[in-house]
Amino acid sequence: MSGDFLALAQPGVQKLSPYVPGKPVDELARELGIDPARIIKLASNENPMGASPRALRAINDALAELTRYPDGNGFELKQRLSQACGVQPQQVTLGNGSNDILEIVARAYLAPGLNAVFSEHAFAIYPIVTQAVGATAHIARAKNWGHDLPTMLAAIDSNTRVVFIANPNNPTGTWFGPSALADFLAQVPRDVLVVLDEAYIEYAEGAELPDGLDFLSAYPNLLVSRTFSKAYGLASLRVGYALSSPVVADVLNRVRQPFNVNSLALAAACAALDDVDYVAQSRQLNEAGMQQLEEGLGRMGLDWIPSKANFIAVDLGREAASVYEGLLREGVIVRPVGGYGMPDHLRVSIGLPAENSRFLEALSKVLARG
Amino acid sequence: MSGDFLALAQPGVQKLSPYVPGKPVDELARELGIDPARIIKLASNENPMGASPRALRAINDALAELTRYPDGNGFELKQRLSQACGVQPQQVTLGNGSNDILEIVARAYLAPGLNAVFSEHAFAIYPIVTQAVGATAHIARAKNWGHDLPTMLAAIDSNTRVVFIANPNNPTGTWFGPSALADFLAQVPRDVLVVLDEAYIEYAEGAELPDGLDFLSAYPNLLVSRTFSKAYGLASLRVGYALSSPVVADVLNRVRQPFNVNSLALAAACAALDDVDYVAQSRQLNEAGMQQLEEGLGRMGLDWIPSKANFIAVDLGREAASVYEGLLREGVIVRPVGGYGMPDHLRVSIGLPAENSRFLEALSKVLARG
Repeated sequence: MSGDFLALAQPGVQKLSPYVPGKPVDELARELGIDPARIIKLASNENPMGASPRALRAINDALAELTRYPDGNGFELKQRLSQACGVQPQQVTLGNGSNDILEIVARAYLAPGLNAVFSEHAFAIYPIVTQAVGATAHIARAKNWGHDLPTMLAAIDSNTRVVFIANPNNPTGTWFGPSALADFLAQVPRDVLVVLDEAYIEYAEGAELPDGLDFLSAYPNLLVSRTFSKAYGLASLRVGYALSSPVVADVLNRVRQPFNVNSLALAAACAALDDVDYVAQSRQLNEAGMQQLEEGLGRMGLDWIPSKANFIAVDLGREAASVYEGLLREGVIVRPVGGYGMPDHLRVSIGLPAENSRFLEALSKVLARG
Repeated sequence: MSGDFLALAQPGVQKLSPYVPGKPVDELARELGIDPARIIKLASNENPMGASPRALRAINDALAELTRYPDGNGFELKQRLSQACGVQPQQVTLGNGSNDILEIVARAYLAPGLNAVFSEHAFAIYPIVTQAVGATAHIARAKNWGHDLPTMLAAIDSNTRVVFIANPNNPTGTWFGPSALADFLAQVPRDVLVVLDEAYIEYAEGAELPDGLDFLSAYPNLLVSRTFSKAYGLASLRVGYALSSPVVADVLNRVRQPFNVNSLALAAACAALDDVDYVAQSRQLNEAGMQQLEEGLGRMGLDWIPSKANFIAVDLGREAASVYEGLLREGVIVRPVGGYGMPDHLRVSIGLPAENSRFLEALSKVLARG
């Protein structure tokens, strides 16, 4: 070897393809040479409402300590989360977004020779964190675009250490019910960590979808991952969290960086957690927007995957890449999901009513061009 | 195995002891039952001036987009850093603090069977990130508390992939000059990545200390790591960066989390980089404070390690733990460094003049008790 720092990288890292985020508004504005204000972005499942005023006030208060390190233990946020979630503080792990949680899990429990099980059409970060540590992905076939839990169970072998399941799932919006989860957990071997990714649960928890926390005490091999990036409206700040057994939390807290969550994020998350009205409004706005999009898509004769999250995967019945490009030229950014094995779909985040209308009009225009 | 999630963790992780941060003010206030305003913290090498007003304005402007994900590519900050540092944007890797950079390096280039070389009395994160990926630490003996570069060179073997060196070094404040660095780099094998940690360089760059960037073009195996947490006064927000060859930057950018640096941090760092007056004032304040502490320590007949950073390691000539505890009871938080093989020293960050005085008075009082 003579200084080839690609060849010197770990084998899993050499083959790593980075995550492709939704196209930023500023980037499209630069490319099209237009005002960013003329662009709408429905590409990253962000909360279309402005931020919680309580979160903004908390950030403002925290600015006095900008030169100081964050509280590495996240004392206050852990206290509040443990109260809100009915767990002990030592069951909480804070992450720089739930992305951080997923990565920490992989680094703690996966390695070459071991594998993680997840579904087709699942969140792109699962294969990335698995690959990065040189572990193998066991990808279970999906059923009607959603997780097929019995097939996932069958994909577990003696080298499986982690199963990633999402409810609702991104990018499909599909979900499973309480009894399906209960059956699954009852059959997963006790030495396999089940990571239940509930990034979108605040939009969906209720009769049809279980609250993963209800299963924590019975299953020490269950970890529930959540985020402040969606219904809580703090994507810019990066706060996610895991709720698990104290043993798993202890391991994850050893692996995480000592100051992984920044001070303004800690302060804003505490305030956002208290702002139950904001989350309720987010959910209402999302339900109305989902209906608006479904009606509009129906009028165009398009199909979609029924979704319980804050986005909808639209089936264009043909290769979607050119439609994505056409929408960009109209100043509308949505998300292509060809990388998720869904080349005919586009994932559209629910926006404000006017944004949803603008998307529907732009889509109609692009499709009319044939 | 039957659900023992400590035993199921990776071997390196099982033995991991988390980083111990400086004691937070709020924690001591809770323990002593006193007002946090009565406590001073000189324990984490933070900037004692308030934040840059430019950084505060930039944060305020960025709050409008709080619900949106950060720009995962950090386009604007990379542009500015590349201009400021005289490199190409594709030579920059952004980190959630330089801690993130150090960890990403370890995950990219270290693994079981490989090793990292660093010095005795070096930054605690080097052994942690090495251990976390199951690699071995080759610890070179220090000389007068500082890096002994020839000894470090001798510690490199065929399984060495990374050398961590810091200039100035934390927690000792020691440094090496341009010719020592040039000699070292000329002799390090080309397939060993030299991580030159310049977290404190803004306090010290000049005739005695080299600018690591001067060596980048000649050494594709050199990575210079820097931070906005010290002289730039943004510790709360978590922004660090690496400057390296494009190949190394490409590898690190694959490994980093897609949104590792939050939006307010990106905005504030751009503004802080422009605020050259703030950095100059930080350095002046630091130089005056260092003189104040050296004079005070000298009057008490105490010794210290000469330092080019924003802290000073005081030699108490006896076990320092009880003095640390005594200072806590006086409401003064400094940093014990027994974990760094320095049981007789305390590391004291340079504060504002009044904070430095208060520390000196408290130390005098505690020592007088015997």
